[in-house]
Amino acid sequence: MTVVTLTTDFGMTDPFVGIMKGVLATRAPDATVIDVSHGVPPQDVLAGALVLRQAVPYFPPDAIHVAVVDPGVGTSRRAICVATTAGTLLVGPDNGVLSLAAPPDSVAKVVHLTQERFFLSPRSATFHGRDVFAPVAAALANGTDPAALGPAIGDIERLALPPVARSAGSLTGQVIYVDHFGNLTTNVAESDLMGEVTIGVAAVRVRGVSASYAAVGRGEPVAVVNSWGLLEIAVRDGSARQTVGAKAGDPVTIERR
Amino acid sequence: MTVVTLTTDFGMTDPFVGIMKGVLATRAPDATVIDVSHGVPPQDVLAGALVLRQAVPYFPPDAIHVAVVDPGVGTSRRAICVATTAGTLLVGPDNGVLSLAAPPDSVAKVVHLTQERFFLSPRSATFHGRDVFAPVAAALANGTDPAALGPAIGDIERLALPPVARSAGSLTGQVIYVDHFGNLTTNVAESDLMGEVTIGVAAVRVRGVSASYAAVGRGEPVAVVNSWGLLEIAVRDGSARQTVGAKAGDPVTIERR
Amino acid sequence: MTVVTLTTDFGMTDPFVGIMKGVLATRAPDATVIDVSHGVPPQDVLAGALVLRQAVPYFPPDAIHVAVVDPGVGTSRRAICVATTAGTLLVGPDNGVLSLAAPPDSVAKVVHLTQERFFLSPRSATFHGRDVFAPVAAALANGTDPAALGPAIGDIERLALPPVARSAGSLTGQVIYVDHFGNLTTNVAESDLMGEVTIGVAAVRVRGVSASYAAVGRGEPVAVVNSWGLLEIAVRDGSARQTVGAKAGDPVTIERR
Repeated sequence: MTVVTLTTDFGMTDPFVGIMKGVLATRAPDATVIDVSHGVPPQDVLAGALVLRQAVPYFPPDAIHVAVVDPGVGTSRRAICVATTAGTLLVGPDNGVLSLAAPPDSVAKVVHLTQERFFLSPRSATFHGRDVFAPVAAALANGTDPAALGPAIGDIERLALPPVARSAGSLTGQVIYVDHFGNLTTNVAESDLMGEVTIGVAAVRVRGVSASYAAVGRGEPVAVVNSWGLLEIAVRDGSARQTVGAKAGDPVTIERR
Repeated sequence: MTVVTLTTDFGMTDPFVGIMKGVLATRAPDATVIDVSHGVPPQDVLAGALVLRQAVPYFPPDAIHVAVVDPGVGTSRRAICVATTAGTLLVGPDNGVLSLAAPPDSVAKVVHLTQERFFLSPRSATFHGRDVFAPVAAALANGTDPAALGPAIGDIERLALPPVARSAGSLTGQVIYVDHFGNLTTNVAESDLMGEVTIGVAAVRVRGVSASYAAVGRGEPVAVVNSWGLLEIAVRDGSARQTVGAKAGDPVTIERR
Repeated sequence: MTVVTLTTDFGMTDPFVGIMKGVLATRAPDATVIDVSHGVPPQDVLAGALVLRQAVPYFPPDAIHVAVVDPGVGTSRRAICVATTAGTLLVGPDNGVLSLAAPPDSVAKVVHLTQERFFLSPRSATFHGRDVFAPVAAALANGTDPAALGPAIGDIERLALPPVARSAGSLTGQVIYVDHFGNLTTNVAESDLMGEVTIGVAAVRVRGVSASYAAVGRGEPVAVVNSWGLLEIAVRDGSARQTVGAKAGDPVTIERR
């Protein structure tokens, strides 16, 4: 039983994800298909890459992960399959969406998906999730060697999270992801939070990093190290997005006290 | 392993879809249940019919498709099962929601679902997805002959997409579906787009049909033939719904240049 | 094949639910995982408890139900597993979210989940759905005896739906759940609706309980007994939330005519 996961910006209102699952059910009926997320903001390749990076470690190492955030669909951007040294396969457009889940030292092989006999025919100009990536994932789930899908290539497009700026006694990061609860995930790692710190985002100042959301009163802002190992600003039983008024891209300052 | 698909207007916030899956897991544990979409606009039977029509061809031919967009639930509207000549079974209310996926020449048999022993008991007046359609789909997945579910009937309620109006050198269609990206799908088929055309929707004019979204600059409107084989007006890396300001039902004109 | 269900307030935009499924697919690959709902309003433990109560009866009696609405994550609130006399297992935080699905006379055993060897390590302070509840559910799906997961305890936190106030000839309940359609579910049971009644909510008065939504004209308010056996105020082919202007917590009066 092979696991195939799906990460897209397709949302859940249209039948697009369901149609991809139809292709998989038709061509690889024994695969188990799992949704990682279809709520990646439209065309936000970096957010898709971040979501995929956070999810992959919790799946079986031999899983096949399909990620389709693909504003260049129908152009000459490449379709690729990345095989990692752990035995994981990543399938999607070569626009960086796979890159955070496959750091350079983890890449065993990259294949440019050119063998059209694995695709649906005719192939649309707007929905390669259905016409290219789902059928390729089905072939891989059925045991097709990635090498059969096209020529090996030496590189993939890479994206990077924005870096944290460091100066004496302070550090400036940013909000990189805002979740359903309105929690603000930053690019500041736990290892950047030594000692007593004050965290600033928009007009809000939070003293120290707490052990849980419930360390403060209801409606109060709180900083925690979240499940991704990153600094998060939340509001207990509330929404930091609304209360703090911050969004992805906004600066976050960490000052030593 | 039989595939059962679900298409509804139930949305994803409530437990209604989960409860239907509970009935299926209880009565047909070997079936594979796949969501086509639960984002059909509430009570929009035609949108549900369109979604189902687009999805069915990508599923195994022996799949069982359940569609519940059912504003007449609890009234005397019939519950039916349509068997197609391809071996596909469609289950839902007889209000047209199944009709676009089952054109007249593809219908092998229609059964009026009257055999209450296949339903849950008691049966509510508001949730036949749970009480009628899921248990009937479970019975079908377990191999029950549709003929056991009720008497054969000769006709079903049919809906039609709005027609395209043609005149010399021009053609007027309409927006029939707006997706999560804000892309505007029209009822104009690829075969209606011969030669050099200018497409008009709201105050926007688009010259020609492009090969991909990326044929224009970011934020610019673009016309493509989409994955349903229909003319679509989109905005590159944006939302045509917002930028163009159009919605389902709005007219779209095609003029030969 | 064991069924594991998931009920959370995580929403569908983030990868949180997908990551829980990754843990389950890794540790209990033979389990069938079904979403009950991830649209419980954030931190609304009572709504989660109500959703779980409505769903459990429609699943196989040996199913494992995981419910994570957990504003106290990371604090000393207990994690528990409730075994019912029917053979059902309920897993979640001990904050009441499991309590409506497990009335006192149905509880066979309660276990305090303390055996950390069943959890992921390290364990985050913010996502016990991933680190505690999914791996525990996987262990249970694989046949682990609940008694192996920690010591038996004698009680769980309990929540109750608000009671209905009764006086001569009238009764006051409230809206307890508003669904995707804008239908208003109340805490008034079918047995409270004897005789001819007039139902009031906000400024709207509805005469009598109808057999279906279609008993009134389009856009008109209607009262029905819904699929949960409770009085519901709806608007035919519309939204009572919008038309009536009511929300969860608002009073509903029932007067005998």
